[in-house]
Amino acid sequence: MINYANGKNFQKNLKIPSKSPVKPKSFSHGNRGMAFENDINETNDYYRNQGLCLVTKRPTPINVVSVDYSSGPIITNAYFEKQSTTDYNGVYNGRYLDFEAKSTKKKTSFPLANISKHQIEHLKQVIKHKGIAFFIIEFSELDEVYFLDAQYVINFYENGDRKSIPYNTIKDVGKRIKKAFIPRLDYLPIIQEITEKS
Amino acid sequence: MINYANGKNFQKNLKIPSKSPVKPKSFSHGNRGMAFENDINETNDYYRNQGLCLVTKRPTPINVVSVDYSSGPIITNAYFEKQSTTDYNGVYNGRYLDFEAKSTKKKTSFPLANISKHQIEHLKQVIKHKGIAFFIIEFSELDEVYFLDAQYVINFYENGDRKSIPYNTIKDVGKRIKKAFIPRLDYLPIIQEITEKS
Repeated sequence: MINYANGKNFQKNLKIPSKSPVKPKSFSHGNRGMAFENDINETNDYYRNQGLCLVTKRPTPINVVSVDYSSGPIITNAYFEKQSTTDYNGVYNGRYLDFEAKSTKKKTSFPLANISKHQIEHLKQVIKHKGIAFFIIEFSELDEVYFLDAQYVINFYENGDRKSIPYNTIKDVGKRIKKAFIPRLDYLPIIQEITEKS
Repeated sequence: MINYANGKNFQKNLKIPSKSPVKPKSFSHGNRGMAFENDINETNDYYRNQGLCLVTKRPTPINVVSVDYSSGPIITNAYFEKQSTTDYNGVYNGRYLDFEAKSTKKKTSFPLANISKHQIEHLKQVIKHKGIAFFIIEFSELDEVYFLDAQYVINFYENGDRKSIPYNTIKDVGKRIKKAFIPRLDYLPIIQEITEKS
């Protein structure tokens, strides 16, 4: 048990870049993203412990190049890959949930640059199969977090001339998620509202 | 685009051990498991392309020990971890699906040894939240594949004195999935039957 706990904390503290390759100069950016990600993870832990819903984070995909089997399999060469789906999915009352959490430093818009075409395709498929697809977007400098239906992001991505979604649009069509102590980012009431309607 | 395609094929051909550490001596075992896993993956690709349902495989969790940032992030030391959830989840008609695919060489029973307590806990949570939880079990020597409701496995795991589920029980309470050319393992009709009832 002690080994397991240590291993878990060790991995938690390692700050593995969960998105695109992180260069040393952008390390503070990575840390900020990690704080937001930790808030999401802690919220999901809370939901699971309270029996409210079950949301899991997909592991970071890693492309393994070489493995040394001489003393058990040790990976000696590998690199991080971009997630081709989203980071989170799960179940609430039988319904499928799927979302991506993104943080931006910008104050006036949410840039679409770090959303891949594969992720957009994935979210379109989720919607097609009647899953609940959304984004949780943090404006870190404003300390504001929003729940945004994935359909808005898809529309902007595919039809918009802009390479970002204006902050005011997100404020208008999204739903604010207020930060709190426990749970950190209480997004479930929004899901409950959506599922009651449909 | 060419680089991406190459990278993708490279990873596909690499045969990364997706479960517990694979030692060289059990390599043929790993290959057999991979063939079954490939059948599941191809079936899921077929379902996605036909717009029937969306099931994704969780990446193999890897614990990263050290990263060399000198020429972009290259992982220089890491090891495979056991999946604490299941390998597959997805959505069919809004409903959440979650399953584990396991292959056994045994002819008379399915051993529970390679199912972790974390996976059992995860599947119990899925059922609690009204998700559809199941196993796809291959008896490789018999060339037979069965769909088995996760609740049976949970019951055997928690209450049974046996460390395996008899083949005859699986044949009795499970549903046979016949192998075919396309899709390889057509499990979706069973899901459709379940969701129509509930």
